[in-house]
Amino acid sequence: MDSGVLKDLLQRVKDGAVGLDEAIARLRDLPYEDIGFASIDHHRALRRGFPEVIYSTGKKAEEIIEIIGRMVEKEENILVTRLTDDKARIIKEQFPQGEYFPKPKVFTLEVRPAEKRGKGAILVITAGTSDIPVAEEAAITARFMGNEVETLFDVGVSGIHRILGKRDVLMRASVIVVVAGMEGALPSIVGGLVDKPVIAVPTSTGYGASFGGLSALLGMLNSCASGVTVVNIDNGFGAGYAASLMNRI
Amino acid sequence: MDSGVLKDLLQRVKDGAVGLDEAIARLRDLPYEDIGFASIDHHRALRRGFPEVIYSTGKKAEEIIEIIGRMVEKEENILVTRLTDDKARIIKEQFPQGEYFPKPKVFTLEVRPAEKRGKGAILVITAGTSDIPVAEEAAITARFMGNEVETLFDVGVSGIHRILGKRDVLMRASVIVVVAGMEGALPSIVGGLVDKPVIAVPTSTGYGASFGGLSALLGMLNSCASGVTVVNIDNGFGAGYAASLMNRI
Amino acid sequence: MDSGVLKDLLQRVKDGAVGLDEAIARLRDLPYEDIGFASIDHHRALRRGFPEVIYSTGKKAEEIIEIIGRMVEKEENILVTRLTDDKARIIKEQFPQGEYFPKPKVFTLEVRPAEKRGKGAILVITAGTSDIPVAEEAAITARFMGNEVETLFDVGVSGIHRILGKRDVLMRASVIVVVAGMEGALPSIVGGLVDKPVIAVPTSTGYGASFGGLSALLGMLNSCASGVTVVNIDNGFGAGYAASLMNRI
Amino acid sequence: MDSGVLKDLLQRVKDGAVGLDEAIARLRDLPYEDIGFASIDHHRALRRGFPEVIYSTGKKAEEIIEIIGRMVEKEENILVTRLTDDKARIIKEQFPQGEYFPKPKVFTLEVRPAEKRGKGAILVITAGTSDIPVAEEAAITARFMGNEVETLFDVGVSGIHRILGKRDVLMRASVIVVVAGMEGALPSIVGGLVDKPVIAVPTSTGYGASFGGLSALLGMLNSCASGVTVVNIDNGFGAGYAASLMNRI
Amino acid sequence: MDSGVLKDLLQRVKDGAVGLDEAIARLRDLPYEDIGFASIDHHRALRRGFPEVIYSTGKKAEEIIEIIGRMVEKEENILVTRLTDDKARIIKEQFPQGEYFPKPKVFTLEVRPAEKRGKGAILVITAGTSDIPVAEEAAITARFMGNEVETLFDVGVSGIHRILGKRDVLMRASVIVVVAGMEGALPSIVGGLVDKPVIAVPTSTGYGASFGGLSALLGMLNSCASGVTVVNIDNGFGAGYAASLMNRI
Amino acid sequence: MDSGVLKDLLQRVKDGAVGLDEAIARLRDLPYEDIGFASIDHHRALRRGFPEVIYSTGKKAEEIIEIIGRMVEKEENILVTRLTDDKARIIKEQFPQGEYFPKPKVFTLEVRPAEKRGKGAILVITAGTSDIPVAEEAAITARFMGNEVETLFDVGVSGIHRILGKRDVLMRASVIVVVAGMEGALPSIVGGLVDKPVIAVPTSTGYGASFGGLSALLGMLNSCASGVTVVNIDNGFGAGYAASLMNRI
Amino acid sequence: MDSGVLKDLLQRVKDGAVGLDEAIARLRDLPYEDIGFASIDHHRALRRGFPEVIYSTGKKAEEIIEIIGRMVEKEENILVTRLTDDKARIIKEQFPQGEYFPKPKVFTLEVRPAEKRGKGAILVITAGTSDIPVAEEAAITARFMGNEVETLFDVGVSGIHRILGKRDVLMRASVIVVVAGMEGALPSIVGGLVDKPVIAVPTSTGYGASFGGLSALLGMLNSCASGVTVVNIDNGFGAGYAASLMNRI
Amino acid sequence: MDSGVLKDLLQRVKDGAVGLDEAIARLRDLPYEDIGFASIDHHRALRRGFPEVIYSTGKKAEEIIEIIGRMVEKEENILVTRLTDDKARIIKEQFPQGEYFPKPKVFTLEVRPAEKRGKGAILVITAGTSDIPVAEEAAITARFMGNEVETLFDVGVSGIHRILGKRDVLMRASVIVVVAGMEGALPSIVGGLVDKPVIAVPTSTGYGASFGGLSALLGMLNSCASGVTVVNIDNGFGAGYAASLMNRI
Repeated sequence: MDSGVLKDLLQRVKDGAVGLDEAIARLRDLPYEDIGFASIDHHRALRRGFPEVIYSTGKKAEEIIEIIGRMVEKEENILVTRLTDDKARIIKEQFPQGEYFPKPKVFTLEVRPAEKRGKGAILVITAGTSDIPVAEEAAITARFMGNEVETLFDVGVSGIHRILGKRDVLMRASVIVVVAGMEGALPSIVGGLVDKPVIAVPTSTGYGASFGGLSALLGMLNSCASGVTVVNIDNGFGAGYAASLMNRI
Repeated sequence: MDSGVLKDLLQRVKDGAVGLDEAIARLRDLPYEDIGFASIDHHRALRRGFPEVIYSTGKKAEEIIEIIGRMVEKEENILVTRLTDDKARIIKEQFPQGEYFPKPKVFTLEVRPAEKRGKGAILVITAGTSDIPVAEEAAITARFMGNEVETLFDVGVSGIHRILGKRDVLMRASVIVVVAGMEGALPSIVGGLVDKPVIAVPTSTGYGASFGGLSALLGMLNSCASGVTVVNIDNGFGAGYAASLMNRI
Repeated sequence: MDSGVLKDLLQRVKDGAVGLDEAIARLRDLPYEDIGFASIDHHRALRRGFPEVIYSTGKKAEEIIEIIGRMVEKEENILVTRLTDDKARIIKEQFPQGEYFPKPKVFTLEVRPAEKRGKGAILVITAGTSDIPVAEEAAITARFMGNEVETLFDVGVSGIHRILGKRDVLMRASVIVVVAGMEGALPSIVGGLVDKPVIAVPTSTGYGASFGGLSALLGMLNSCASGVTVVNIDNGFGAGYAASLMNRI
Repeated sequence: MDSGVLKDLLQRVKDGAVGLDEAIARLRDLPYEDIGFASIDHHRALRRGFPEVIYSTGKKAEEIIEIIGRMVEKEENILVTRLTDDKARIIKEQFPQGEYFPKPKVFTLEVRPAEKRGKGAILVITAGTSDIPVAEEAAITARFMGNEVETLFDVGVSGIHRILGKRDVLMRASVIVVVAGMEGALPSIVGGLVDKPVIAVPTSTGYGASFGGLSALLGMLNSCASGVTVVNIDNGFGAGYAASLMNRI
Repeated sequence: MDSGVLKDLLQRVKDGAVGLDEAIARLRDLPYEDIGFASIDHHRALRRGFPEVIYSTGKKAEEIIEIIGRMVEKEENILVTRLTDDKARIIKEQFPQGEYFPKPKVFTLEVRPAEKRGKGAILVITAGTSDIPVAEEAAITARFMGNEVETLFDVGVSGIHRILGKRDVLMRASVIVVVAGMEGALPSIVGGLVDKPVIAVPTSTGYGASFGGLSALLGMLNSCASGVTVVNIDNGFGAGYAASLMNRI
Repeated sequence: MDSGVLKDLLQRVKDGAVGLDEAIARLRDLPYEDIGFASIDHHRALRRGFPEVIYSTGKKAEEIIEIIGRMVEKEENILVTRLTDDKARIIKEQFPQGEYFPKPKVFTLEVRPAEKRGKGAILVITAGTSDIPVAEEAAITARFMGNEVETLFDVGVSGIHRILGKRDVLMRASVIVVVAGMEGALPSIVGGLVDKPVIAVPTSTGYGASFGGLSALLGMLNSCASGVTVVNIDNGFGAGYAASLMNRI
Repeated sequence: MDSGVLKDLLQRVKDGAVGLDEAIARLRDLPYEDIGFASIDHHRALRRGFPEVIYSTGKKAEEIIEIIGRMVEKEENILVTRLTDDKARIIKEQFPQGEYFPKPKVFTLEVRPAEKRGKGAILVITAGTSDIPVAEEAAITARFMGNEVETLFDVGVSGIHRILGKRDVLMRASVIVVVAGMEGALPSIVGGLVDKPVIAVPTSTGYGASFGGLSALLGMLNSCASGVTVVNIDNGFGAGYAASLMNRI
Repeated sequence: MDSGVLKDLLQRVKDGAVGLDEAIARLRDLPYEDIGFASIDHHRALRRGFPEVIYSTGKKAEEIIEIIGRMVEKEENILVTRLTDDKARIIKEQFPQGEYFPKPKVFTLEVRPAEKRGKGAILVITAGTSDIPVAEEAAITARFMGNEVETLFDVGVSGIHRILGKRDVLMRASVIVVVAGMEGALPSIVGGLVDKPVIAVPTSTGYGASFGGLSALLGMLNSCASGVTVVNIDNGFGAGYAASLMNRI
């Protein structure tokens, strides 16, 4: 029921063509979607400044191009995640103004500059070098959502002086994303050093009993440091997104 | 190396009794703990307004009483979690001014009123009635850390109108904690309705293939709504604590 | 927004006291719950003849009594599941007209006789004798929802003649619920003998590598017989409920 | 013991050549297969209108062609599932009248039109776009078994208005198949909105802690909505088949 | 269709009251159970000398007494497994001629002496002392089924000389049952020393990463010695039974 | 210490060149291997008629050829398992008298005909067609070890008449190997029909919640039929080997 | 074959009563155990100074008393692990000279003082206070085996200054045992700070996704610090024992 | 704060330009890194003789070459693990003086000969031939860290005489690394024969229920032999490293 239909009904109420009880009955029968649709628009307004995100796994290059095309018309900024190199090549030909980051496998298309909305900087940390692609996914996401982002890579717990030596960087961040595989211990250390939200991202790096990231995931969920919350294995995007929401509170 | 020792060293530098190079060497040799101790103090200052938290599992009533005793001297507010009824009775005798909440099994002792530091309200939601104890642990924690807290219980996804009907409550919160067992779907719904950080707490309610909360935990980690982060099964305290940190950014 | 509020708004539209655009705006702002409430009522109407179900785990006897009390006022039939003997005793004192089934731990209170709505009989089968409590939960649920129910117990696959000898019983059922623990093979046999929906219920009977019903659950999910669907371990209620829905199509 | 042998025995009973007791003894000794064989034929009759189904994994194109060949002679409709593109190409050359659906990897060969036997429409829903191949397997199966099928794709829970806006479609279906990966929450929502059987199909889409569909599977088994039953991960065929059986009750 | 009904039908064939074709049709329609019943009797004959086995978990003492009572009438030897001490006491009062073994929790009632049917001795070995109850369940079962049984306890792999020193005992057995918890390595050693069937029984002894016997179970399934087969965790009865079958080939 | 060394020592005892105590001391010091070596020879004698088995995974074609070469010199029959097609091609060139079975990926080289040693026939059964390769590995192994082997393929539980119709084949076997994937239910059926050892082999066929054969494995371990023992997933060789040992008791 | 029998045989060789070949044959037939027995004695000698260890789970107080009794006669020091309070009381009555440690549930009986054999001190560290019982089991074991032991409790990673402040203690240890539950991160930190063997002991403390210590176990196995090895969950004894062996190299 | 800054501060203290209290305050504020940096240098000194280790998974050949280049300048010996053949080829071109071991996939570059620091020999044992690559990784690591290394391959438990025959080799080692897949039983045997530290390395060889090495891992963690510690699946490097640390105590 679009606005016209609703207006029409009310007009007929006003005109007396439709009685009050009948009008109430018809309004009661309003399918959710009409109210819902309104709420979508309202919703969109609230989300202004958020990029549109396309999770590309299982989608063909052509399908992604089509989706991007429709969004570009609406002047949306676009973030494509988990985009393989070969798909990226095809898409880049269509949208040469976009940028492809081969390590985190992210493609961005900035139609209008992301409005700076975050209060402080979001800091993205990794334990090892293999965690960097996931960390970059988080960093790009957070930046794209209007945040200042700092990074600190390869400061894992087996050389504890590395993270301790960067306490000043930790101190000036407002939200910290910690990306780690293997035993996933770094978020506990960081969480114990700062009084800020720490988002832990387990990665599937490692082998054997890391069981595809399960080991890091369980470690992070059992963190002895309060204030640590966790996202899915390798979910850099989710961490960057959540950090952005926190940074706007 | 307490302050006196350090002063003494510097005095002797000043007096020329110790040469610069020797002083540097001795400072270099400073065991971490001394600097560390300094940092604890500094740290504590930053944490002002945080309660001291005692996780009581595996501790006897006497041990808990002793710890509380020491803290009370330092004028710390105290939060004891997972306190069984029988231990609570003994502790309450010693500290009758404290308050025991039998459902979430939390004991609080407020030496001085928690300073209000949160910006907006923290909203704690549960899917079912069995999730309420965990939710109350989160709510008490957040309140104790100086936040205004609202609750919305039993609004699970099998009756979707219940949560939809409370959209206004969702809208006015700054951080939302969603507590759910079974399939753990509620955080995805909430995360899709709002643009705020959602902290998901899986609970061990349910039976059979819920595998002690594993089902809800996995559901939440795989949430299709961006912005959802997760804590350990039944970890209401952790959720309340993380929400408080987010609310202070 | 109850009916009065809505009527009032429409009256004012009719009277010209509120313009069309303003009315539309206000209707758009209708919180979900109001429409929702309407939809609940409508919903309830559709569900007429369904019992109200109370899952009693984690609820105290007093809480259950209070819920029953409120429902009895609405003339609802009531089904309480997983009710321990001691809670049952207390509740039975309050509602002596109710009936308690100690094996499946179900309490029923029939305010008005369940309308017979199912087309054919629902057949509930068990592989062993230890599966009977779960089967009875399914049978009572289905009966309570207005179905004719037949049962066939202890016809497991290690003595295949037992189930084969009851082919006539299988043939005359419209939906079959098969309850089995251990290897959970019976649903495959039954599914291969009939052309009807088979709902498989794994049970937590068994020991060792049955891992609390996981073995039976996986067996049923991998059933080589088409037409078999599965519910949670020990979820007799869910199977009885789903069977009732199928029997009304 | 074929019909001739049996007839012969009875003839000899009639002629008095074999005494009653001896005849009983010999009939008692009848191996299962003879009665069994009879039962197969009877069985087949009951199943008239069902397609023959070939699960192609592990079978070579030549083997599949041979099986199809034999069935075509018996005028059976044929449904081949999980057929890779390269095998499909070879088979299509042999049976050009068949149809190959590359997304769900299904091949159908309709020798005679499927008799319409379902009472209402079967609705197949997906949470995301990656779930569509599995959903199409379900839809084709149900259609092939004589049902009217409707589909509703990409209405997952993170944008709850999408499914709410389609309540009328939900309402007019007789059985609903819900296909979802990740947290597998959609069946709970749908199950809470309708009073019909909901068959939940977990998919292996997702990554990390989705553990190949385990996350969605557990979510669905623990659904808080009554009336939801579950099939194996990615088992669109099984869901379509079970839905067809339900739709014939 | 009991014997009388069948006789009646044949009589009527003989009398000409029923034609051959009609008789064939009616015989074809014979429900499985009648033939089945015949087959049970035949089956029982084959099984002569086997005890009747009652798995007592989930059965009340009264129920067990009733089952024993019926079997005693048929002069069956009876073996009750997993019988708790308190149930045993009640049952022993009713059947004082029976024997209760408190360690393996087995109750036996020998109505007539078990016919010796095994060819050689069955040897039951344990790795540790905690594995003895399960081993005794196996030994009693095998003895009860007419086999000579030898035992060799506490010869685990950490003191390899213990089992090596008993090679003569290993050599003279015809089937060997090896009961072990923890890493479950003993069956591999034994399987490498002999050319006989080795039945491995994992036990749930141990703690931590033994995960209730999973560790021993997996170890045994992956045995590098050929000829080792495995039964469920703690399933001494199953091992004794299988060993008895092997010993009769 | 070979025989000569030992003889020499004893000769010197006899000659008085070595005192008794010194001789005892030297005998005590005999390293295990000497006795061990003796025992190996003795062992080999016992094993006469067994093929030498080479598990080829992780070995290069050249390495396998070298091992075969050495064994052929000793006139051993050889069985190579899990041999990929390309390695087989290379090996076949070297040993053209050998035979390669591409489905079960087994290569055999019979230097002298396997002595018939089994008492009865070993029956190998499969539930589905995808289980045939594993079954053939079992069958070839058993045949190679001197047993008569019968096979019965594709008689799974969803069409129970298929196995029931072959009861005579079951009855005449002395040991039965049952190969099944998915729910792994067939061994329970077979175990309930016969009084013989049943060796269950789970296969990794299936998808989703079959978890690479875990589902079938658990089903078989929890079999409600006594007398069923289990080997590792896809371990046709182990089943054939164990069946051969049983058939020689 | 004890020494006398062997001497006798050699005497008869010497006397010519037994020929060389016959003697060789008889020596070849020596069952392993005789040599084995010799090797046990030799073994025992090597192990001088080691306590006898009794794992008490599953043993009754009387059984333990009997074992202790026999060992005391041999003047062995005795260590009983996992001894419950009630069993301890009974045993202490019999052996009042022994000592019971209620927290780690260890009972020791020192017949003669443990010879100091370790080179440096073994350091036992815990992350939290709940890990102390397991740590004490390790410490008592190491002390009992002749090592100097130091302990450092409650220095977990969420307050990283606590362990850093004790670097001097770390530096002077020769082997370090690190006991930790939850995320099990402490061994990585310690392993990164020192160049010594670190033995990690996961504990079953924690709740929810700690899954009985699995989380800590996986974390430790995936430690990013080289030089860390792991023992079973809660296996303080094993860690203390292994540390003792390392300290004697 | 580098040395100059510190010197400068002390100079000003000496000069009276900075008061004692102010100096203390500034020293207190010393960020961790400054002290930390000092400690790194000190640390490095301690580690003299250790190779630099590069875990190559996830790093490109170019990245590895760059890291090696920087290290070579510092005259470090270099060990690259898990290096694929194609990367090795590229790296070898740049550093032809290095050595590549294709089986364990290790590349070493010895700038100066490793100082012999181990006391006794480290013995590396494998159960099967498929475990050799992991064992060689351990052996090369230990050798590179200055130890004498012995190896003993293919002495698994199914032919127990193989390991028993090598007791002398076991006896003369100071630390033993045992590499095994499948049931992982060999470390228990070895641990029972010697009084030395045994490091167990599970391997991912095997199939089916070996679950990628989980079976061997659990077996080793549950070893009934005291003194066994465990590293991650396939972690030959970690075992060699830990053995080296133990051999230096």
